Amino acid sequence: MSAGGSPRAFERIGSETVYSGALIDVRIERYRHRDGAEESREVVRHQGAVGILAYDEQELWLVRQPREAVGEPDLLEIPAGRLDVAGEEPLQAAQRELAEEIGRGGARWEPILSYYSSAGFCDERVHLFAATELHAASAQSGENERIEIVRWPLVKLDEAIAQCLDAKTLIALMWLARRLNGSLHPQGGSAAEAKLER
Amino acid sequence: MSAGGSPRAFERIGSETVYSGALIDVRIERYRHRDGAEESREVVRHQGAVGILAYDEQELWLVRQPREAVGEPDLLEIPAGRLDVAGEEPLQAAQRELAEEIGRGGARWEPILSYYSSAGFCDERVHLFAATELHAASAQSGENERIEIVRWPLVKLDEAIAQCLDAKTLIALMWLARRLNGSLHPQGGSAAEAKLER
Repeated sequence: MSAGGSPRAFERIGSETVYSGALIDVRIERYRHRDGAEESREVVRHQGAVGILAYDEQELWLVRQPREAVGEPDLLEIPAGRLDVAGEEPLQAAQRELAEEIGRGGARWEPILSYYSSAGFCDERVHLFAATELHAASAQSGENERIEIVRWPLVKLDEAIAQCLDAKTLIALMWLARRLNGSLHPQGGSAAEAKLER
Repeated sequence: MSAGGSPRAFERIGSETVYSGALIDVRIERYRHRDGAEESREVVRHQGAVGILAYDEQELWLVRQPREAVGEPDLLEIPAGRLDVAGEEPLQAAQRELAEEIGRGGARWEPILSYYSSAGFCDERVHLFAATELHAASAQSGENERIEIVRWPLVKLDEAIAQCLDAKTLIALMWLARRLNGSLHPQGGSAAEAKLER
């Protein structure tokens, strides 16, 4: 936690786990603000996730899958997954998920940005990457039988954005539209890029 | 839940509340897929939220606030809030929140889009609106003493996007950048717009 110089700085002074589940925990946490006030919050703890914007000259690689939690049989998304392997870095998780979900690898990987899904009550942070110079790759996964791979023409990118209901996918696709329009400024002002030959 | 014609359609056949909290519930839900397979999922139930992109010719109205759940003392966001008043429509909630958080009303309100924050495990849906033709408004709120109002020059919109870590704000600001660039296509192909004189 950043103490910072902000008048809005706070410190966590207590935490009680009230639910411990398979994917998430819920904690009642207590904070003390710089002005001395104390308050409690109900917080969902999540390990974080990755999303991959995989594209080449002509196409964007998307998936359609059932999302039971939100009652959607056919949500259009970028490939993604949880940071659920101990010690795995976000980039490694992204490379693993891309192979598992769509059977692709990328020779070039670039961090796009990372964000909090719902900062008011949940600590999930999603790390987005762009993967390009794609090639066939394979990986074992027992959980993807209901995922349909969708090769979406880049010239119809605006239509994908218009029908998208998924936060990580909206962010990734709008980022891509900005890049293709040439109006992109990287997060934090840095232009970190990783060239990987695999 | 939509049954649909998709091979990915499913039905919910069971739901057990395993945690019932102030803001969220957690349920273990059981689903049966069209292929007959059954599976259980841990699902966070949330009432949903609204976010407001309030801007005029020169400025965008943002807030900085502490987000204890993610350890950030100073997260840059659009005004937002939960759908926590019974029977309140998203547009009403957005109008209430804008007045409470930044003391502004808007003569013109327009739905931008809505999205799921993290569709794999949480049903939170966020409804984004654009508010323009702004004027002073006031509303009572006891919970906003640590919110700083930030009037951000529209000409520096790209800088706000570059430093933003919050999903709803990223989506709203990138949508605004598209609108200002003239490359916007509305969600679902419709151009619904509400002109409100208040």
